Amino acid sequence: PPGRKVLVVYAHQEPKSLNGSLKTVAVEELSKQGCSVTVSDLYAMQFEPRATRNDIVGCLHNSEEFNYGVESREAYKRGGLSNDLIEEQKKVQEADLLIFQFPLYWFSMPAIMKGWMDRVLVQGFAYDFPNCYDSGLLKNKLALFSFTTGGSEDMYAKGSISGDIRYLLWPMQHGIMHFCGVKVLAPHICFAPEYVSEEKRKEMLIAWAQRLKTLWKEEPINCSPEWYFK
Amino acid sequence: PPGRKVLVVYAHQEPKSLNGSLKTVAVEELSKQGCSVTVSDLYAMQFEPRATRNDIVGCLHNSEEFNYGVESREAYKRGGLSNDLIEEQKKVQEADLLIFQFPLYWFSMPAIMKGWMDRVLVQGFAYDFPNCYDSGLLKNKLALFSFTTGGSEDMYAKGSISGDIRYLLWPMQHGIMHFCGVKVLAPHICFAPEYVSEEKRKEMLIAWAQRLKTLWKEEPINCSPEWYFK
Repeated sequence: PPGRKVLVVYAHQEPKSLNGSLKTVAVEELSKQGCSVTVSDLYAMQFEPRATRNDIVGCLHNSEEFNYGVESREAYKRGGLSNDLIEEQKKVQEADLLIFQFPLYWFSMPAIMKGWMDRVLVQGFAYDFPNCYDSGLLKNKLALFSFTTGGSEDMYAKGSISGDIRYLLWPMQHGIMHFCGVKVLAPHICFAPEYVSEEKRKEMLIAWAQRLKTLWKEEPINCSPEWYFK
Repeated sequence: PPGRKVLVVYAHQEPKSLNGSLKTVAVEELSKQGCSVTVSDLYAMQFEPRATRNDIVGCLHNSEEFNYGVESREAYKRGGLSNDLIEEQKKVQEADLLIFQFPLYWFSMPAIMKGWMDRVLVQGFAYDFPNCYDSGLLKNKLALFSFTTGGSEDMYAKGSISGDIRYLLWPMQHGIMHFCGVKVLAPHICFAPEYVSEEKRKEMLIAWAQRLKTLWKEEPINCSPEWYFK
């Protein structure tokens, strides 16, 4: 709906890829709805995935022994995080919905996107104690993991060798987004696009556009072990 | 035992950290046993976590549309991967045991280590089709995930808010190591070292050294859904 803000965090090297097209479909469909859409194109930005001392501007809280968690928390408090992180945090802060668009790498997100999580979701900004899980600091936001796989849908069925696809969603959806208080919409998964016809890939794009039309009416999943492992 | 080769893939910014000490304990104890131990100190190496075109030396297989999986597979075949990857692959090839030492970041490994997985474990080197899981190309090797957590042990118990710690081991142990044919030893977990006394932390180091003394007699876990989710 008009006025809603969406951040698409996108991790693919190739604009012509299916991931690139899925990203474009999201931008176009949501813009058409009157949403304001921002994209963090991580590879194009050459986003830094490594959590290092460079993320802290100025003096360290404890320069004797570098503790990234402590230093980023303290730097956040005094406005001393590096500019790239401040930029990303602003985008997150303004967004009603976060869409993560990526190809599944090794049962998880690509390192460049994991680095976005590691570095942007700083204590004091995204969570604090006891403000985590349902009282996380990013509550009232929604997240959606949209990804492509190498393996086919039946390889990710319960009882097959790669296990239920939901097993691998636990760290991402529950361990990261739910931890920060974000409510999680059902994932959007395109299975094995490299092994299907061009026509089937077009259908995947259409299905995504269709889903986005009624996305704001969706209820979040119940992000608890039952959803993942029952 | 004398002659065994171990690769420690280590991801912490601070040598004085508990992770740094755990790494040193492993190097010392295993060397004392006569093993030859190599360390990939990812932050010190400024290891690149991003999977990009830079990993491919020379011409691309398909320069029209960049597909990292295809390009890295083809580059591996013709010896055209970047030098940092060739170096890491040599270390993996020679190792009987891989130890991953890291602080848990967001229910997973830090991005710099995820990047090591994304970039080093190339198709054709670590797996191929149908050579995956029990017939993965790195069979006859062992892996052990050794990590520290922010949360306490009871936060990671079954039924508590963060869920059984085994849930989050699925993508790393099964999705990566088992997929490549590597047998997985029980993880070594130091819970919440930042919240315990200096004495307790010393005990953690001693316990790790103790475990390493009889490590080669350990049986791998049964890396199937039952171990993780039953």
